Parts: sequence; C-alpha cells; structure tokens
Amino acid sequence: MDDFKEKLTRYRNCVNDALEEAIPENGEEAVSAMRYSVFAGGKRIRAALVLAFCELFGGNIERALPFACAIEMIHTYSLIYDDLPCMDNDTLRRGKPTNHVVFGESTALMAGAGLYARAFETVIQSELLSDAQKLSGISVLLDASGINGIITGQMLDLKNRPGLSENEVMRIHKLKTSAMIEAAAVLGCVASDCGSAEKEKARRYAENIGLAFQIKDDILDVAGSTAELGKTVGKDKTEMKTTFVDILGVESSQKQVEALSESAKKEISDIKGSEFLCSLADYLAYRKS
Amino acid sequence: MDDFKEKLTRYRNCVNDALEEAIPENGEEAVSAMRYSVFAGGKRIRAALVLAFCELFGGNIERALPFACAIEMIHTYSLIYDDLPCMDNDTLRRGKPTNHVVFGESTALMAGAGLYARAFETVIQSELLSDAQKLSGISVLLDASGINGIITGQMLDLKNRPGLSENEVMRIHKLKTSAMIEAAAVLGCVASDCGSAEKEKARRYAENIGLAFQIKDDILDVAGSTAELGKTVGKDKTEMKTTFVDILGVESSQKQVEALSESAKKEISDIKGSEFLCSLADYLAYRKS
Repeated sequence: MDDFKEKLTRYRNCVNDALEEAIPENGEEAVSAMRYSVFAGGKRIRAALVLAFCELFGGNIERALPFACAIEMIHTYSLIYDDLPCMDNDTLRRGKPTNHVVFGESTALMAGAGLYARAFETVIQSELLSDAQKLSGISVLLDASGINGIITGQMLDLKNRPGLSENEVMRIHKLKTSAMIEAAAVLGCVASDCGSAEKEKARRYAENIGLAFQIKDDILDVAGSTAELGKTVGKDKTEMKTTFVDILGVESSQKQVEALSESAKKEISDIKGSEFLCSLADYLAYRKS
Repeated sequence: MDDFKEKLTRYRNCVNDALEEAIPENGEEAVSAMRYSVFAGGKRIRAALVLAFCELFGGNIERALPFACAIEMIHTYSLIYDDLPCMDNDTLRRGKPTNHVVFGESTALMAGAGLYARAFETVIQSELLSDAQKLSGISVLLDASGINGIITGQMLDLKNRPGLSENEVMRIHKLKTSAMIEAAAVLGCVASDCGSAEKEKARRYAENIGLAFQIKDDILDVAGSTAELGKTVGKDKTEMKTTFVDILGVESSQKQVEALSESAKKEISDIKGSEFLCSLADYLAYRKS
C-alpha cells in the first residue's frame, strides 16, 4: 500500500505540474476561476488512470500527460456546471466554496467553458503525441463528455426522483461518471499505442471501478461526514434522488462495490506491472472520502 | 446582387442539410434544445464565409462543410450562453424565445455544452478532411472560442459600462465577434489547403468585416426595430453598455462600417471569383437586420 500511495503521489505531482503549465495565471478573472477549481484539491484519480495505463502498456508517461491534464480539466468543468444554481445548486465542493459562490455565476459559466476548450488545446499542442493519437484522444474525450456521456447523464440526473429502478440509476451513473473513468483508461492506452485487446481490458477494468466509484459515493453520502468528504452529505436524500443505497441498502451496496472492484482487478491482474491499478481498485472500494 | 443572394441561399441550404445530418433528432431533450437554437433561422454568415473562401482558393466545398457546421454550432452555443439569465438575460433571439425560456436554464446549459462538443465531433468524423486539416481546424475553432476569444470577450462585455474608450470597445468586439468571423475565413482556407499568403488575405478581409458587422449591430440596436431584428432593440442603452454609436454617433459609425467594408474588399478583389465575398461585405454593411 505504501508503494501505491507513493506512486499515486508521483502521478498527482506530475499532473499538477503539467496543469500549472497548461493554465498559467495571467491576470484574467476567467483564468483565476479556472485555476481555483482545477487546483481545489481533487484526487486526480482520472489522471492517475491515464498515466498508469500508459505505463502498464509500455508507454512513456510524458506522452500521456496532455491527456491526463485534459481529463482533469473536463472533469473540473463538469463539476463547476454540476454545482451551478440551475443544476444541483451546491455551495461546497472539496471542502471549499464552489466556483460560482466565489466568482459569481457568469464567471463560473465562462471558467467551465474555458476549461473545456483548454483541455483540447492542451492535447493539440503536445509535441510528443502523433496527429492520429491526438484525434483519437480528442474523440474519446468528446464522446465521454458530450451527448453520449456527461450531458445526457446530467439531464437524467436532474430528473432523478424516488422510485427509479436499479437499471435507471445505473444508466445515470454510467453516463455521468463511468464514461469519463473509462475514457481515462482508454486515453492511457491511446498514449501507449497498445493493441485493441489491451484497450478492451482497460475499458472493462474502468467500467467496473467507475460503477464501484459511484456506488461508493452514494454510500458515503449517507454514511460519511461533511468534514471527511468536503461536500454536503445527505444531499441525495434532501434532493429526493434515488441512489444505489435506496435500492440495495448500505451493506449490499458495499458488497457490490467490492465485487465490482474484484471484477476490475481480474481484467488486468495477469498483466505484469498491474499492482498499482489493482491497489487503486481497492483504494476506491474502501475509501472514506 | 441576384447572383449573390442565390449563392448565399445555396450555401445556407448546404449547411442546413449538413447540420440536419450532424444533429439528428433522437428524442433526448438536450438534443431538441440544441436543434431549436441551431435551426432558429440564423443568417449562416460564418458558414458562408467558410464555404466561399474554400471555393475561392480552389477547394471542394464538400470538404469544408464540417467546418461550416462546426462554426455555426459554436456560434449558436455562444448565443445560448450569452442569453442566459446570469449573462445578458435575453428573452428574444432571432424573433423567437431564447433557449432557456423554452427549455429551462439547466437544459439550455447542457444544450450549449452539447453543441460545443458536437462541433468538434463533426470535424473529427469527416471522411474528406486529412488528420492535419482536422487538427488545424479544431485549433482555429478553439482559439476563437476559448480564452483567447469569445470567453474573454464575454467577460469584458459583462463589465462594459458607460465611458469606455474606442479601443476598449474595439477589444471586446474583436474577441467576442471578429475572432469567430476570422476563424470562419481561415477554416475555408484550411479546407482548401491554400498557401499562407492567401490565408492572411482571408484573415484580414474577415477582420475588417467582423468589426464592420459589430459596429453595424450597434447602429441597428439604436436605429433598427425589434420586428426587423428579431431581438430586443435599445438593449445596449438599457444595460448601460458603451457602443461604437456612443463614441462616434450613428452617422460616423455607418461611415466607419463602409470604410471597413471597402478595406475588406481591397484584400481580395484582385482574386478571380471574389465577387461573392465582395458582395457579402456590402451586404453586411448595408443590412437592416
């Protein structure tokens, strides 16, 4: 576990340095707002997935860094929009006031849009990725963040009400959360230029941990504390959203998380060097925040 | 002038057909909202610029169509966001209720984001553009729509107050409007694979008509009618924004528009086949809506 934490820290530092270069402070308010949310202390799980899969399949992580930055920027953009008054109307995120609370709604809107644009620019400006890798990576990012991913997930989640079936809740989470986690794993594969069998293993691993990640979020929303999570707990209940916990209860939900984590590990455990990604699956399944 | 209108109609029909294919109705609410604004009757000036410059420099307009669609989608996305309550809070656009009035704020937000993503997807999915053309085109679009373009333009326009200098007003318009008009011209060049001298002529033509276009908008905001414009007139005054009309008066502003239009034409008038683009410069300078 110490090796795991050390490697996670190394990945985090790498991506934080690269993000610092990709979004330098320039005195513009929209840029300050972009930086505020990008550097608000996210876990960088998506970036770590990009870098770890690139390394697992023999790629150079320098080449994967623009993808890692891009996915963190797009993830941050989706959180800024998710928190807006017309969406979930959240005031706390990662223990800090949300973007629109600090900068106002119009700046938050522009900061989100700015991050989305900057994500793709960061990929295009890479000097290590080939044209084909850039286009393939941008495609993966667009698919996960556009109408086939986050956007439809958000639309469905806005209509999430008590009484949804397990399949309906699953579909929301797949689109809203897992799509980007799968994208992260696939981006690592694109950067490593691995074969399609490897890419499919990575995608299935990520599909499993993506769903586990979201069910764990639902568990923490009822069982965690605001102090540990850095965001308002019990929100799903207040907002009358159906969660996995409503359908399965806390205990079965946790069992489901652990089963998904095991399935994820099985996809890759026979590959040399997969220890970090196996530990990551456990880390997400047993996390407290 | 009849040839001009005929060609403009031909370009419009081409891009409308391509947009219909790029954003098919699929029953999703976000997609209906995307389509509502994309097909709300825009003039398609940006699309026409893409197609006309591609043709002017010997390119096949089929190849330029994904760029034409993309720029119209991004333009529409920027209008949806511009109209949101936290931005200009507009209820009328092109004679119709704005997106958030019809679909609600959260759907309008997602529709805008969806259009931005779809714009790049449309370029990437082209079977006629080379990888290099796709990346170069996406770069142009990102530059015009990101922090170097619309976003900073919007941020400055939100702070537009009485007493701004001509240079300050010019900077807002350059970022908010001209950047995308220049992008349209350059995209036509990218699709035609013309040389850098041609590209620079196209850019300068567009820089001039872009500024003329915005000054004309300011004139129409005080001198036009809501019925002709399809949007609320006199808004700049109500919102206490400085416009070119405030600085130069209506008459000098119109002279400026005509001078810019002449400069634009000079850039390209010696090129065989530039009649349409010359007429377009006049059309924009003397338009009534």
